[in-house]
Amino acid sequence: MPRVRVESFTVSLDGYGAGPGQDIDNPLGAGGPELHQWAFPTRTFQRALFGADGGTTGLDDEFAARGFENVGAWILGRNMFGPIRGPWPDLNWRGWWGENPPYHVPVFVLTHHARPPIPMEGDTTFHFVTGGIEEALDRAREAANGMDVRIGGGPHTIRQYLRAGVIDELHIAVAPVLLGGGERLFEGVDARALGYKCVRFAASEKAAHVVLRHERWEDA
Amino acid sequence: MPRVRVESFTVSLDGYGAGPGQDIDNPLGAGGPELHQWAFPTRTFQRALFGADGGTTGLDDEFAARGFENVGAWILGRNMFGPIRGPWPDLNWRGWWGENPPYHVPVFVLTHHARPPIPMEGDTTFHFVTGGIEEALDRAREAANGMDVRIGGGPHTIRQYLRAGVIDELHIAVAPVLLGGGERLFEGVDARALGYKCVRFAASEKAAHVVLRHERWEDA
Repeated sequence: MPRVRVESFTVSLDGYGAGPGQDIDNPLGAGGPELHQWAFPTRTFQRALFGADGGTTGLDDEFAARGFENVGAWILGRNMFGPIRGPWPDLNWRGWWGENPPYHVPVFVLTHHARPPIPMEGDTTFHFVTGGIEEALDRAREAANGMDVRIGGGPHTIRQYLRAGVIDELHIAVAPVLLGGGERLFEGVDARALGYKCVRFAASEKAAHVVLRHERWEDA
Repeated sequence: MPRVRVESFTVSLDGYGAGPGQDIDNPLGAGGPELHQWAFPTRTFQRALFGADGGTTGLDDEFAARGFENVGAWILGRNMFGPIRGPWPDLNWRGWWGENPPYHVPVFVLTHHARPPIPMEGDTTFHFVTGGIEEALDRAREAANGMDVRIGGGPHTIRQYLRAGVIDELHIAVAPVLLGGGERLFEGVDARALGYKCVRFAASEKAAHVVLRHERWEDA
């Protein structure tokens, strides 16, 4: 049965999943790039984001790689798609990733402002969903066609899906960094009461990796 | 120069440093014992808390052991001393730890309710400080007589001293556990802006250990 997954989501020691002050020059917010030092050098990220050969292997790469396995569709909060808030001033913004984004499957972007789909190179198409998280998940599941749906973030989007009880598994990386402020992943979310528990814990020199799984999969 | 240290302070994946619902049967709050699975089996804790031989060695024990090195006095919030709130009904409560507590130095307990000192076996004496965190630190520093002062907790006490800018170093263990609720260590505290950064990161199979140091010690 297909799953709904969060992968490679990194939080700081003080619990923040994104730094404060995101803008066009700081897609990850202030301090955000420090969060992802475990991921950027990996072979998986080098290939997916930069089309580069090489990169590190080992535990960090293992976790980076599982995030791309068996993913048939993505869901992104609007802030992950870009820095623009409110109505689209024009149709020029096409995401942070250039003409060939690292998704290669349909991507559903949550927004309050309708916009036609954007077909990109490499089989990524951005779809804009104004009907809320349920509609986005329904459409993503259908598009995934039996594969899993990956919820990319940000923290606010993940929290909405956690509260809705539909996320099956989360890989979270804890980075040895203090952000001091920003958006907390678990703000106002009681993940224990919602039925999640830690089923894997392993650390590299750059991050501690945990896998949280919903209890409905306990025997899986 | 003597330092003010926090040691072996454990937080959950969702950032809580103590579980909800502390009472006489649950000194660590609901779920609290799960937090400390990295510490209890270590040689250091077995010896210090239970007077037992044996216990595990390795990274967890190394971090447990550093918490007792060069400590000349402790400061505890009242909830770490016991479950009683408000005025002392009598003088019968003498801490969670029996007649020979694991401190073996003067311990300063923050409270709003005065009480005579309690000399215990093994050189621990509990002193009750009603003048606030500065008075407690002054007295602890004097009692430590050139050694370090360890702030035991709980989260509220540590946050007060963090905001006051007097903590030099914190060892924090992140346990692969969800508590879902309780008291957050970094609630309303911007540790980055206060001048802390991570200077060590290492993980066992049971916890990720980090050392945060204030920037005034950067060259130490």
